[in-house]
Formats: sequence, structure tokens, C-alpha cells
Amino acid sequence: MASKESEAVRRHWRRAASGDRADGELANDQWAELTGEPADVDYLAVPGRPALWLVPHDATADRVLLCLHGGGYISGSRYSHRKLFAHLAKAVGARALVFDYSLAPEHIHPVQVDEAVDTYRWLLDQGIAPEHVVFTGDSAGGGMAITTQLRARAAGLPLPAGALPFSPWIDFEASGATYDSNRERDAFFHRDLVRGLARVFLGPEGSPRDPFVNPTYGDLTGLGPIYIQVGGDEVLLDDARQLAEAAERAGVDVRLDVFPEMQHTFQMAAGRAPEADDAIARMGQWGRKVLGL
Amino acid sequence: MASKESEAVRRHWRRAASGDRADGELANDQWAELTGEPADVDYLAVPGRPALWLVPHDATADRVLLCLHGGGYISGSRYSHRKLFAHLAKAVGARALVFDYSLAPEHIHPVQVDEAVDTYRWLLDQGIAPEHVVFTGDSAGGGMAITTQLRARAAGLPLPAGALPFSPWIDFEASGATYDSNRERDAFFHRDLVRGLARVFLGPEGSPRDPFVNPTYGDLTGLGPIYIQVGGDEVLLDDARQLAEAAERAGVDVRLDVFPEMQHTFQMAAGRAPEADDAIARMGQWGRKVLGL
Repeated sequence: MASKESEAVRRHWRRAASGDRADGELANDQWAELTGEPADVDYLAVPGRPALWLVPHDATADRVLLCLHGGGYISGSRYSHRKLFAHLAKAVGARALVFDYSLAPEHIHPVQVDEAVDTYRWLLDQGIAPEHVVFTGDSAGGGMAITTQLRARAAGLPLPAGALPFSPWIDFEASGATYDSNRERDAFFHRDLVRGLARVFLGPEGSPRDPFVNPTYGDLTGLGPIYIQVGGDEVLLDDARQLAEAAERAGVDVRLDVFPEMQHTFQMAAGRAPEADDAIARMGQWGRKVLGL
Repeated sequence: MASKESEAVRRHWRRAASGDRADGELANDQWAELTGEPADVDYLAVPGRPALWLVPHDATADRVLLCLHGGGYISGSRYSHRKLFAHLAKAVGARALVFDYSLAPEHIHPVQVDEAVDTYRWLLDQGIAPEHVVFTGDSAGGGMAITTQLRARAAGLPLPAGALPFSPWIDFEASGATYDSNRERDAFFHRDLVRGLARVFLGPEGSPRDPFVNPTYGDLTGLGPIYIQVGGDEVLLDDARQLAEAAERAGVDVRLDVFPEMQHTFQMAAGRAPEADDAIARMGQWGRKVLGL
């Protein structure tokens, strides 16, 4: 049974579904509410960029998580996800960089993935070795943890060491069978909503089969290892499976953990819910190995 | 008329009054929700102390605000007040230190004021000159911005340059006439509630007339300048007036600004509401002068 602390995630999504949300900025804060404050972490604002360094006191400085926040491409920020990624950075023992990309509907694809590539380039320009970087992200950011790699490679940049997507959103046609089988279990998402968000993000011209949108339509050969986490009660459960299968077909070292009874991005309850802390600990262990820590 | 952004503070207190609050930690986050994120501020966790340094990028390092958070002595933390005091630190152009003190009912007076004195001593031990320190705080912390001075002086420590209490709580008997005249205007506080909180904080032995509880029963002679802010719709309006009058009688340089139609600790809407930003700007100007910036 889901812990009472993880029930807070379900309540959060139910509240969102009922329309009981204030304006965007407040909604972000309500999201951030789910996450406990991790101790012994510094938050440094990057001059001139909408980005924060998350620096656990015992982090290895030259190992970095590049963090791609979720929010359906219409919400979320470095602030809404600050604590979540700080928990992950502590578990890995690395620094983390979380940044704001431009949001839809004002800004549509491929602005987001291009800004992610630009941030990765900036990171490499700081002297960080690509093999010391792992991309991570939740939901929309989980998809970007893969598409940004494809886009970066197309731009001539080296690939990072690996990726840690959780509850990744990659199926912009909402074609998965879990849209039906988990319809009653998922507290917020459903096919019409996700297709609507996809249209907002893609705009009139964008295709849901663009490999920089859905990476299973791209060439995943040569990518570093990928560790995917997903909640068992999500309608997006099949997104995670589709990504895992495509990566496996391409010969990528891939691991998928399904967390029973968990909602979309249940890791947001890190520092509060045992399932979220377990998930973060597993990502931490995997990340340390991939980053040679 | 109060701005719609300041109405969020009224809604917050109304929600609190209706009992629509989750557990303590979530309640703190809901409070923090009111405050916008200030840009260009670093947050550094102090090793070994439950404290954060708030460091605006253009701050003068040797000038410090010692920040005493509010929350009726039963709630609030360095996290709930991080953004609020960061806005103030930016306005002053100084660093700020915000720390957790032990909360009632588990811990009662004088533990809180003693921990504040201990934090001030630690600050001086870091090489910060007392004349470069201003004490500030909201509500319970506003009272502590004065009582901590009296307690520090009694312990042989030098006084800081001045104090910036806002919506200070000093009258633990809830004797003020504004408990009646503002009863309908204040969205949350009322006499019974405040007397109840006072009893929780004081415990069976404590007196509401202890000068380290209500500083108007102490000797305010020799204190540096005090600038008090308070909302016009608060039942605690008279607390601010009583403090101003006592300070004036003692020959202290005191200023009191009443903000019409504002609720208790309306400055929590800094970064969102014009009244809060105006209040912070006024405190910033005052603080710069007192700290010689």
C-alpha cells in the first residue's frame, strides 16, 4: 500500500485535476510543497543565466547532474524542482545544475531542447568533462534527458555518461495501453489532457514523431546507460516501457524500475515519503556507478 | 484598496483560520508560497548549525541582518522565511543569517531567546562587528529582535546597530484595543488565539511581563534605532504602537509605519504584492543608513 506521505502526491494531482490551482507561479510552489528540504545543500544562482547550482556539501565538484525539470512544458522552474534535484544530487554525491527553459504556449518546440543543448554546451565550456555528466529529468524533462542527447550529438557535441529519466513523457500521441488500463488509478493525467499538452508544445507545425520530441523515432545507438523509473499507477507507464524497449533495441544498457501504486513523478515527495526516498536512493547508487564515484 | 496580490495574504490567513492546513511542515511551505523567489541570491547551509546564509550577489559581506522568523513560536523555519529575508537582504545590500530556534510546545521560553543570543554570539565570533549587524524579524521574531538585544546585553555582549521588527508580537496578554477595533478586519488572529499561543510559549511558570518576553517591561535605554512596520488591519497593531512608545520613552530613535488595509506579516508577499515590495524597500533604505551603506 502506498505510504500516507506518498498519498500527498495523489492529493496534489487530484487538486490539480479539480482545477483548485492558483496562477502559474503559485501552482509551481504548490508542487514544490511536496518535497522536503534536504539539509547541507547550497543553492547558488548562476550570474546571467536562469539557473541554480545545487551543491551538496560532500559533492564531488567535477561530477554534474544536468537537470531538466518537468511540468508539461507549460510550468515548472528551477525553483519548483530545486529540492527534488538536490535530494538526487546528494544521493549521487555530485553537483547539479537546474535551469529554466522557455515555456509553451509562448515558446514551442524545438526552443526547449535547443536551450537544453545550449545549457549543456555552457556546462562543457566550464571545463566539465562529458563523461562526468548525467542528464536527468522528470516527465517532460525525462523525455528531454534523451532528446537533448540526440540534439547535442546532431550539433557535434559529445554525449554525456548516461541518463536518469523518471516518469518520462515521450509518447506525444498518448498511444499507450496504460492510458486505458490505468485510467482510474492515475489521479490527474488522461489521454485528452496529454494530447492537448502535446498540441500546445508542438504548435501547428510540430510532429509527435519528430525524434527530438519522441526519441524512440531517433537513433539511440551509442547512448550511455539509461535508468528509468516510473509509477505503476501512471497512464504514462507505457511511455517508460516504450523508451526502455527502444533503447534496448539500439543496444543501450537500460534499466526500468516500476514502483507499484505510485503516481506520476512520485519522487517529488523526496524527504517525506519512503517510496520517493527509496527511488532517489536507487538513482543515487546507479548514478555513482555511472559517474565513477 | 489592497492589491490583489496582497489579498493572497488575507486568503492565507483565512485558510489557516478555517483549519485547512496540513501538518506543520506543509503549513510552513504554504506560508512560503506567498513569497516570490528573489533572483541573484545564494543560499548557503551553515555546517553544524540549523541556519542559512542568504547572500545577494551584490551584498556587502561584512554587513549582516540577523533574521528571527515568526510563526507564533510553534511554527516557521529558516526555509519558510528564506525568500522573505532574502528580499530584505537584497534591499539592504547585506548578507542575512536566518536560523531555526527550538519551537513550543516542546521547548518553552527562554530557550528561544537564548538560542538567538547564542546565534548572535556565533556571528560576532565570525568577525562581524556588532555595529554592522541589524536584528530583524516578523511577528514572534519581531519581538525577539528587541528581547534578544536585552538578553544579549545582560549576557555582556555588545548591542547591534539597530532593529527592524515588523508586525512584532510583544503583548502576551493581548491587551491592545486593536484586538477589538480590528477584530473583523484581521483574517486570522484574535485575543483567545493569541493568549493561547502565549500560554503555550510561556509554559506554566513563565510571565507575560518578563522583559525577555515583552520588552516594554525592560530597559530599552541605549538601544540603537528601531524601525517598526505593521499592517493597519491587524489586531496586533497596538503591539507595534506599544513598542514604539516604550522605545520613544527610553530615548531610542524609533519610527513606526502603519500600512493601511494590510494583514499581519503582509511582507510575506514580497516579490508579488506592491505593498510588500514597498515595505521591503522602505526597510532597505533604513537599513542601509543604519549600517552605513
